[in-house]
Amino acid sequence: MYQLTEHDLGDIAIGAALLGTGGGGDPALGRLIAREALRRHGPVTVVTPEELAPDSLVLPVATMGAPTAANEKLPSLEPVEELIRAFADAAGRRPTHLMPIEIGGIAALIPIAIAAQLGLPLVDADMMGRAFPELQMVIPSLAGVSATPMVLADEFANTVVLRSDDNAHTERLARAVCVAMGAAALIALYPVDAEQVLAHTIAGSLSRAADLGALVRNASRDHQDAAAAVAERIEGTVVFEGKVIDLQRRTEGGFTFVRTLLEGTGPSLGRTAEIESQNEHLLIRTADATLATTPDLIIIVDAASGLAVTTEALRYGVRTRVIAAPCDPRYRTEGALAVVGPRAFGYDEDFVSIVDRVKERVA
Amino acid sequence: MYQLTEHDLGDIAIGAALLGTGGGGDPALGRLIAREALRRHGPVTVVTPEELAPDSLVLPVATMGAPTAANEKLPSLEPVEELIRAFADAAGRRPTHLMPIEIGGIAALIPIAIAAQLGLPLVDADMMGRAFPELQMVIPSLAGVSATPMVLADEFANTVVLRSDDNAHTERLARAVCVAMGAAALIALYPVDAEQVLAHTIAGSLSRAADLGALVRNASRDHQDAAAAVAERIEGTVVFEGKVIDLQRRTEGGFTFVRTLLEGTGPSLGRTAEIESQNEHLLIRTADATLATTPDLIIIVDAASGLAVTTEALRYGVRTRVIAAPCDPRYRTEGALAVVGPRAFGYDEDFVSIVDRVKERVA
Repeated sequence: MYQLTEHDLGDIAIGAALLGTGGGGDPALGRLIAREALRRHGPVTVVTPEELAPDSLVLPVATMGAPTAANEKLPSLEPVEELIRAFADAAGRRPTHLMPIEIGGIAALIPIAIAAQLGLPLVDADMMGRAFPELQMVIPSLAGVSATPMVLADEFANTVVLRSDDNAHTERLARAVCVAMGAAALIALYPVDAEQVLAHTIAGSLSRAADLGALVRNASRDHQDAAAAVAERIEGTVVFEGKVIDLQRRTEGGFTFVRTLLEGTGPSLGRTAEIESQNEHLLIRTADATLATTPDLIIIVDAASGLAVTTEALRYGVRTRVIAAPCDPRYRTEGALAVVGPRAFGYDEDFVSIVDRVKERVA
Repeated sequence: MYQLTEHDLGDIAIGAALLGTGGGGDPALGRLIAREALRRHGPVTVVTPEELAPDSLVLPVATMGAPTAANEKLPSLEPVEELIRAFADAAGRRPTHLMPIEIGGIAALIPIAIAAQLGLPLVDADMMGRAFPELQMVIPSLAGVSATPMVLADEFANTVVLRSDDNAHTERLARAVCVAMGAAALIALYPVDAEQVLAHTIAGSLSRAADLGALVRNASRDHQDAAAAVAERIEGTVVFEGKVIDLQRRTEGGFTFVRTLLEGTGPSLGRTAEIESQNEHLLIRTADATLATTPDLIIIVDAASGLAVTTEALRYGVRTRVIAAPCDPRYRTEGALAVVGPRAFGYDEDFVSIVDRVKERVA
């Protein structure tokens, strides 16, 4: 258990942007919102999953919407009371703790702001260990946990409560509501008890984000290779270095689709690589070979600073290094890959873990 | 109070199709569903608004979706228990009575089926006295009654509960959910008490539909002029007679838009008229003059049978008579016309009551 203050936010924002694999929106925005809330309401108590009492009711909270919309429209925390009240009405009780649903970008920081506002403790864990675009892609869903009762609330304090036995149905309905809410809703979903937190979440996510943030900050200060340090810390590898020479971007149904072309630099000189992103970076390949795919983490960092380049921030001319790192093992089962593997996103590829790809290359 | 049996359904279906002014879907389909329910569960008790106990909780129920979708996909009553349970969870109690929200087409018949299935009495009233495409267009909404808690349920028993202070927001959110549910949802909304039923609904709607249905049936049997009889009974007038010679139709966002061109016959010979429909028929005009507009009722009937021609059933070559009849006076206020008048639907016209139009012509 510790007290999270505004001084922790910088590192968490840097780390969450990295773990967000391009998605989750602009962490600087999330940091601003969280700082404002912590200044007004004081620090947030953070507990580990092991510290949860058995009768705890842990409620993940987030904003939902395309990163594009989130950047144009500051997510409003105004309706947070209505969000929690609607949840409590539906679930029969108020949550005892909050949690991030994913540790990517804004998604790591909004729960801090909401926890400060409500005076509720936060669990140091998330349900992905990264970011993914759809809500049935969390690890608890793969284990059969229902996303519902799920609540959405908008800036007018309109609330929507969804109930479904099928998390893919919930995703479809929630996405439609979110678009109708102007692509910026506050959401609460996947309520879990202490046992479920221990079994189906990724413990220590907030600490991991903070740790990565500090690593990048220190490497930058010490003129060290931040990308290499990050890759090492998350047991990943730098799979490509290059400059953005082409971008195709479209926003559709609450999603941002980007195809990025990199021209190799440094050790990648003479090659090009293509990255496919759907909110998150999902696949990187050269003319010869696929370098990494979802559900492994594909992280684009600015070559100079080691800071994450989000899907939104991808621009012509940006010099990048691309890190691939292994996802949580629970994402590598056949059942999980049907939901978060390359084919689930429309890429005609089998998943090969970055761990195995590296072994092959070394062998 | 009386017992509604399957023998009442034929006349109600005919009358509701007329009062539906083109909208509300195929009443034959609604009749089938209601007959099935009445056969299985027995007759439904129908009460007048005056017979309601003060602590009654009256819940309008309906299906939501474009008429097109309703015809392709039989509205499923399967999730009716989940619909009512979700409503009771949100409202704190179960309804004591059900009611149609509009008296148009399927909307008049589905509540009969649901009432039979649930064993609940039905109130002989509705909230429009006709049909309109959007849910904030009911008379209680004009008087400030909230549409929420509103519940939507689909064939998978997914439920969605909306809460909003603004019925136009509720419409927008519900429409998005409805489309995501495959454009065929079961809905419950505008819960009202006995006092609100007396103040803000149109009493006797079901009886009126049944009466009109009998009128058409008898006129047809006796080789009388059914259209003229209907027009007279609802204090309307036949404003045009003609054959459909052109149709433009598109379905968009859960709505069916149709522009119909009629070539005059009989007393309208030598003229053409254009009818604009958005689920319902909203405006009819000739080259010289507007003949009638929303919120007055524009009813297209088959010239031979006097049966209503729904927006969906409009076909090239159909010979029609067009009746215009005055809407409920509560729709004629300035505030109401802002919601249901011609400009609310994008037509650059002032509303002139058919009563005044007829007076002008006679004078």
